[in-house]
Parts: sequence; C-alpha cells; structure tokens
Amino acid sequence: MLFSVQVEVSLREGVADPQGATIERSLPHLGFDGVKGVRVGKAIRFAIEAADEGAARAEVEDLCQRFLTNPVIEDSTVTITAADAAQGS
Amino acid sequence: MLFSVQVEVSLREGVADPQGATIERSLPHLGFDGVKGVRVGKAIRFAIEAADEGAARAEVEDLCQRFLTNPVIEDSTVTITAADAAQGS
Repeated sequence: MLFSVQVEVSLREGVADPQGATIERSLPHLGFDGVKGVRVGKAIRFAIEAADEGAARAEVEDLCQRFLTNPVIEDSTVTITAADAAQGS
Repeated sequence: MLFSVQVEVSLREGVADPQGATIERSLPHLGFDGVKGVRVGKAIRFAIEAADEGAARAEVEDLCQRFLTNPVIEDSTVTITAADAAQGS
C-alpha cells in the first residue's frame, strides 16, 4: 500500500530560532501586530510503499531519527494517510 | 482571543525542489526503499491575537501573501486552532 507522509521537523523548545526571531521582529513594520512566538521548521512530504500503516510509521520514524532530523536540537511530528484512494494505484 | 497558527509553505507543483531530490536520491543508500516524491517546504508556527477565527485567518492569509511566501513559486496551507484553552489566558 502507498501512504502519504508529512513530517514536520521543528526546533526543540529552548533552541534559538534566528529565522523565526527575524520574522517576528519584522512583522510590526509591515503592520502585523499581535503575532508572537514565531518558530520556523521544515515540512517534508513524500509517499512511501509499505505493507500497512504500522510498518509505514515504523520506517518513517526510523528515517526521521537517522536522516531527516538532528535529534539533539529537533523534534519531528509524523502524519500518515493512506494514499491509494487518491492515487488509484 | 489567542490562536495557534501553523502555516505550511510548499513549492508549487512543477517547481524544481533540489533539496527534496537530494533526500530522495540518498535514501536507497541508507536502506530506505519505496520512498518517492520527496518535497521539502517550511513549517511556520506562531500565535496571533485576533477578535475571532475569521479575523485571524484573514490576517494570516494576508501575511502569507505579503511576507511568508513567494506566491510565484510557493503555496501556503493555513491551520488555525484556538489557543486560549491551552494557554489559560
């Protein structure tokens, strides 16, 4: 079965996020008030072929640990949905 | 009211994604087969103060158009949830 996967890689709490801080500092100059706590992470999407959702999740978690994230400073959130219906395969 | 916002900024279909292509090419060497269509975008999270969810969404959409995305090559997906309960404010 084919699964659609979204992995959100975010910096752990307490880790400095200069990109987010820069966005937050710029917003009042553009007329956007009331925005705070800006954090910028990565959104990685892909399709994975696996026997079932459990197998897909296990492989994606392993992939996150070994390759997609730096576990010292980053967390990952995995969302998996069956893609067969959408793709018709 | 305070709202938690997640903005996913992704490259439009057809726009080259060298970062995603590099990840995809590397995976078989690490023992991950069956992964395809890797696309890398940005996941931006922040909190916004607004009168209601409609007002929050309008401001965030405007923010995406003017600042967070390059509309020529990028799409944005906005998810808004009420944050008051979680933050107790």
